[in-house]
Amino acid sequence: MRLRVDLLPHGEYPDTVIVVDVLRATTTATVFLEHHADRLLFSGSIEESLDLKSENTIVAGERGGLAVAGFDLGNSPIEAGTGSYAGKTVVMNTTNGTYAARVASESAKHVLLGALRNAHAAARKAKSLAVEEIAIVCSGERGRASLDDTYTAGVLCEYLLAMGEFTLNDGARIALTLRRQVGDPIEPLSSSSGGMSLESKGLGEDIRFCARISESTIVPTLQGSTDGQVIFVSG
Amino acid sequence: MRLRVDLLPHGEYPDTVIVVDVLRATTTATVFLEHHADRLLFSGSIEESLDLKSENTIVAGERGGLAVAGFDLGNSPIEAGTGSYAGKTVVMNTTNGTYAARVASESAKHVLLGALRNAHAAARKAKSLAVEEIAIVCSGERGRASLDDTYTAGVLCEYLLAMGEFTLNDGARIALTLRRQVGDPIEPLSSSSGGMSLESKGLGEDIRFCARISESTIVPTLQGSTDGQVIFVSG
Repeated sequence: MRLRVDLLPHGEYPDTVIVVDVLRATTTATVFLEHHADRLLFSGSIEESLDLKSENTIVAGERGGLAVAGFDLGNSPIEAGTGSYAGKTVVMNTTNGTYAARVASESAKHVLLGALRNAHAAARKAKSLAVEEIAIVCSGERGRASLDDTYTAGVLCEYLLAMGEFTLNDGARIALTLRRQVGDPIEPLSSSSGGMSLESKGLGEDIRFCARISESTIVPTLQGSTDGQVIFVSG
Repeated sequence: MRLRVDLLPHGEYPDTVIVVDVLRATTTATVFLEHHADRLLFSGSIEESLDLKSENTIVAGERGGLAVAGFDLGNSPIEAGTGSYAGKTVVMNTTNGTYAARVASESAKHVLLGALRNAHAAARKAKSLAVEEIAIVCSGERGRASLDDTYTAGVLCEYLLAMGEFTLNDGARIALTLRRQVGDPIEPLSSSSGGMSLESKGLGEDIRFCARISESTIVPTLQGSTDGQVIFVSG
């Protein structure tokens, strides 16, 4: 089977994709489902998110790490973990992560959301679904490869390689080398440009939360998409 | 000063850029200038290259590693090194590298072509030209980050860090980690998808040629661009 890491979203995905935006969208998405949200809806814009506000929705997201006017919540996994969302749809819109998830949803058969928090579970689920290829798609930071997502892709690759044989693309080799060189996730996460930006806004606790590996077995899984709205449920 | 590595060409470059396509365009470009070509002209397409054919031009390039019908030469640095090009313009058009050079030329003040072959000289020249930022722009492989260019960017970063203080972006950290983890350049070059493709076409000797570090002091340097044609001379 092929194991491919795209350091940025790119092109067509024929089979199973794990979308990664470890700081913070895919970590926070996982936490919303841990706290019993019925489903996550990744919207295409701030305006669309606000239009979806209702009694049964919570609207969450950020721009440049900060809360958006009119949204109920930001993109903090710690903040997300303080609520309970049973019976609710959480609408998310973020700078990088929700875009990557939407790109992957256009072509892939299966789309999962992965982070360090659910890395082992996401790798296991991808392995059980994939027939010919697992693609780990990093969201990156405003169109550039990011250290935090590349590292997380390396952790996912490491788990997958323990589960079977794969042929690796260049991105997978780069990500694995980074993971093997840097053992402690706090280092790449806090020295990444996204991490430094969070730290400067007083959100350093979120980085440390996102750096914890495989504490969750919840894997947000694409249920379907309609009218450009992409829906994930607990898998 | 900022030191930025873009694992793929992306956006605006305000200052000094080193474009990297180690397998093989920027290596071969360096060799053409070592062998006394007056100038290199990076064209936009195969058709445009053929239109530029004349008594004083040599047309070189490839698609998918193979020679193009009507071109005088392929994209092999070893083949390039068997000729002498005094008084000639070499027109080059390749799959990834000439595109990256053209993107960089649209905004940057200074554009250099870098490879392992001229890594030390390219780093030194970039350091002497740059005021606020050195950007190392990897060509990648058909829109995806490549192991060979990322490794070469790491070698360039290593030289630059020995010459002064820089703030690094995420791409630079990824490239440096790769370089520090993998000492011998033959390994990332030959296991990259571009390298494996060359090997499968019987072009393995080119990989070994491209893997030799800092044997040349020639740095192809952007002279100017007109009508979308980008011209490099020996710098």
